[in-house]
Amino acid sequence: MSEQAIAFIRNNQAACLAQLKDFLSIPSISTQSEHQADMQKTAAWLTATMEAIGLQHVQIMPTAKHPVVYGDWLNAGPDAPTVLIYGHYDVQPVEPLDLWESPPFEPTVRGDNLFARGATDDKGQLFVHLAAVNALLKTEGALPVNVKFILEGEEEIGSVNLEAFISGHLELLQADCALVSDTPIPSPDQPAIVYGLRGLALFELDVRSAQRDLHSGQYGGVVHNPLVALAHLIAKMHTENGAVTIPGFYDDVVPLDDEEARLLDEQPEAYLAETGARKLWGEAEFSPNARTGARPTFEVHGIVGGYTGEGSKTVIPAAATAKLSMRLVPNQDPDKVAAQFIKYVHQLAPDTVEVAVRRYDWGPAALIDRHDPAVQAAAAAYKKSFGRQPLFVREGGSIPVVTMFQQHLHLPVAMMGFGLTDDNLHAPNEKIHLPNLYRGMEAAIHFLKEYAHRK
Amino acid sequence: MSEQAIAFIRNNQAACLAQLKDFLSIPSISTQSEHQADMQKTAAWLTATMEAIGLQHVQIMPTAKHPVVYGDWLNAGPDAPTVLIYGHYDVQPVEPLDLWESPPFEPTVRGDNLFARGATDDKGQLFVHLAAVNALLKTEGALPVNVKFILEGEEEIGSVNLEAFISGHLELLQADCALVSDTPIPSPDQPAIVYGLRGLALFELDVRSAQRDLHSGQYGGVVHNPLVALAHLIAKMHTENGAVTIPGFYDDVVPLDDEEARLLDEQPEAYLAETGARKLWGEAEFSPNARTGARPTFEVHGIVGGYTGEGSKTVIPAAATAKLSMRLVPNQDPDKVAAQFIKYVHQLAPDTVEVAVRRYDWGPAALIDRHDPAVQAAAAAYKKSFGRQPLFVREGGSIPVVTMFQQHLHLPVAMMGFGLTDDNLHAPNEKIHLPNLYRGMEAAIHFLKEYAHRK
Repeated sequence: MSEQAIAFIRNNQAACLAQLKDFLSIPSISTQSEHQADMQKTAAWLTATMEAIGLQHVQIMPTAKHPVVYGDWLNAGPDAPTVLIYGHYDVQPVEPLDLWESPPFEPTVRGDNLFARGATDDKGQLFVHLAAVNALLKTEGALPVNVKFILEGEEEIGSVNLEAFISGHLELLQADCALVSDTPIPSPDQPAIVYGLRGLALFELDVRSAQRDLHSGQYGGVVHNPLVALAHLIAKMHTENGAVTIPGFYDDVVPLDDEEARLLDEQPEAYLAETGARKLWGEAEFSPNARTGARPTFEVHGIVGGYTGEGSKTVIPAAATAKLSMRLVPNQDPDKVAAQFIKYVHQLAPDTVEVAVRRYDWGPAALIDRHDPAVQAAAAAYKKSFGRQPLFVREGGSIPVVTMFQQHLHLPVAMMGFGLTDDNLHAPNEKIHLPNLYRGMEAAIHFLKEYAHRK
Repeated sequence: MSEQAIAFIRNNQAACLAQLKDFLSIPSISTQSEHQADMQKTAAWLTATMEAIGLQHVQIMPTAKHPVVYGDWLNAGPDAPTVLIYGHYDVQPVEPLDLWESPPFEPTVRGDNLFARGATDDKGQLFVHLAAVNALLKTEGALPVNVKFILEGEEEIGSVNLEAFISGHLELLQADCALVSDTPIPSPDQPAIVYGLRGLALFELDVRSAQRDLHSGQYGGVVHNPLVALAHLIAKMHTENGAVTIPGFYDDVVPLDDEEARLLDEQPEAYLAETGARKLWGEAEFSPNARTGARPTFEVHGIVGGYTGEGSKTVIPAAATAKLSMRLVPNQDPDKVAAQFIKYVHQLAPDTVEVAVRRYDWGPAALIDRHDPAVQAAAAAYKKSFGRQPLFVREGGSIPVVTMFQQHLHLPVAMMGFGLTDDNLHAPNEKIHLPNLYRGMEAAIHFLKEYAHRK
C-alpha cells in the first residue's frame, strides 16, 4: 500500500539531497542577533517548500522573537486521526570554526554522510517529514491521516516563546498525537524510541569585584579575582564523585522502578568510544545510561571574563560570568531547583565579591507512556524501514516542546529520531548519515499508515 | 644651570603633545601577530625621532620577535658617567573595546589627561626622556652625562628575547646606571621611587576530557566537563583566606625586616578607592602594601573553552584552558616555583581528565639598593620638579629588564616613574596625567644633571 511512495523516495534521492543542501546552507543561528535575517529567510524557504508539496494554510506566524512556520493537510476526513509534526529550523552556533573540515553552511557529502550545521539537529530530520508527505501526495494524491506541521525557530534558545504560541493556538494545533524527530538512535541498524527527556534550566552567574579591569601586579593579593572566586563557587557545586551539592537538589528525584533500571542497564554503553574520553565520570552508584537519562546534572558551558585572546594579558578582570545549565528529571520543579541554586550561591559567595544569578530559560522533564498507539506506530514503522525493533530509552537532552504538547494539548508524543550519537550535535562537523536520512523518510511514511490503522 | 632646558620644555608643550599623540596612534600590540607591521612602524617612528633629536648610532636591532631600538649620545667624555635609559614601545591588547570612551589609538585629551593605549605604559613615559634629551641638546648643545637608549618591543609579552639581546651586547650597553620610567606614583603631588619589583611566571593550564565538544544533554553526567574540572583545580590553588596552597610556594620568601615592614605600612592605602572593590581580599596577616609588594600571588587571567558568545550553547567542551600567572618576590626561583606548581597540578588532577601545563615566560623579582647614587639622583630630581621627597616603595608588578640589568650589566636601576595608579594600566581608558608628563620631562633633565654631579 505504501509501495509507490517508498519507490518515489528511492528514485528521488538526488533531488531530495539537493533540496536539503539548499535548506542547510542558510545560517539559521537563533541565538545570534546578526542572523536575524537568516531566520526570516529560512522561514520563507520552508513556506515555499511546503506550498510546493501541496500543504495548505501555509503561513509564517510571528512570535516575540523568531516565527513559527505552520502548514497542514486536513483532507483525510473528520474520522481520520490528526498527527501534529514538530521540527525546529534553527541551529546551534558554529564556533570554533577552525575545527570544521568543510564550512558549516556549505553542506558537503563525504562518504555516507552529509556535513553541515543543522544536518541532524534538526533541519535534516524535519526535512524527512516534508519529503515523506511529498512522496505520499505525489504518488497517492492523499495522506492516510490529517497532518499539521509546526516548525519552530527557537529550540536552540530554549523554545522561549513556544509555550505562549501553543497556548494561544490550541484550536489550530488540536491533534491526536505529536511526532517529533529530534533524537538520536544508537546505530544505523538499531532504531530507538525516546520515552523520557530531561528538563533544562539555563543560568548565568556573575561575579564582580572591582569597578574596572586591574593590573595583576599592582592589585594581585589585595583584590579578589572574580575568575578565582567563580572557580571556587563552581567547584563547590559538585562533590569529587560528580554528585551535585546544591541543598535539596535531589529531593524530588523519583527512584527508577525495577523494570526501568533493567531497561537502562541493558542498553549499549558506547560512551567511551563515542566521546574519546579516557574514563567515564559521574555518580558511580548509577549506570551511565541512568546518569544521562534519569539523574539531574549541573554543567558549565563557558566562562566569560578576563583575557582569552592570543598570548598573555596579566589582568584581574572586573567581573566574570559563567554560563551554566542543569538537566532535570521528571518530578523536579525547575522553579524550585532554581531557587535552591540561587540561595546556595548567595550563601557560598564571600563578601569580597558581588554575585548575581540570571535565569534565562527552562523547562521540566518529560515521560511518555510507552504503550500509547502513537509510540507503538513509531515502533512498527521503525521495524518496517530499519528491519529491527527499536530500543526504548530515556534521553539526557531536553526538548521543551514535548512537555508543552503534554501539558497544553494533552498529546502523546512519539519521538522517532534518525540521527546518530556520533553526529556531532552542537559541535564542529555536525553531520547526518545519508542511509538514515532516506530510511527515515520511509519510516515517516510507514508511521502515517500505521497510525491511521491503529488509532 | 638647567633653566634654559626647563624653559624649552615649558614653551614647547603643544608641540610635544602633538608628537606624543602621533607616537601613540600606532597600535603596537606585541602579543597579537596581526600587529606585526605596526611594531615595525613604531620602531621606525622612534629611529626617525631619535635622529631628529641628535642622537647617534640610532638603529633598529632585530631580536627573534620584535626589535630593540638603540641610540646614544656619548660626547660627555670618558670621565663622565653613562646612563642607560630603558623604555618599551609595545602596549597591551585593548579588549574590551566597547569600554573605551575614545578609541585606544586615537589619542584624545579630556581635561588634564591624555587617553590612549600606551599613554602611561610605557610609550608616554619613554617619550619623557626623548623630550628631556631634546630640550638639553637644543638649548645647551650637550648633555651632562653620556646617554644610551634601549627601547624594547616585548615588555608586555614578558621581554622574551631581551635577555639574549643584553647578553649579546654587553659592550654596547655598558653604563654606570640604568634609568627606567615604567612605574606609577601615588598622586601628582607625591612622587615615589620603586626599589622592589615582583617577578612573574606565566602559564597555561589545559584540561582535556573528550575528543570533541559534546551535547550536555547526551553526555552530562558521564563525561567530566573540563570547565568543571578546571574550576576544581583553580579553587584548590588558594585557601579561603587568599593564601596560595602550592606546596613549598612560600618556602623561599624572605620575611620583611622591621624598617621595611614600617615603610610598607606607612604608605597610602587607597586600594578601595582606586579599584572600587567593596572589600579587600588576601592574606589578612599582611598589610595591603606588603601583599602587593612583598608577597607572591597566583592569579587567573582568562579561561578559554566552551561557549562564551551571545545567548546559550549547552556544550561540554572537549577542553578548557586557563591563563595563569604568579607574581614572585625576591629570593623565589621561578624554575623551582614552576616545578612545584606543575607537580601539584598533576597530583590534584583526577584520572577522568588529561592535564598539561605550558610555561611561557618568567623572570625573578628585583630589589635595588636605596642608597645608590642613581636612586639618590632620582630622589633629588623628583624633589626639584615635583617639590616633594619621593616615597620608597616595593611595587607589585614585574619589569623583567630590571633583573636583567642587575644580573648581566651589574647596574643599579633608578625607577623614576610618572604614571598614576588610576591611569588604567592594562585596562580600557588608559591615560597619562598631562601635568605629570611635563613635570616628568623636567625631572628627567634634573636627573641627568644630578647624576653627573653625584657620580
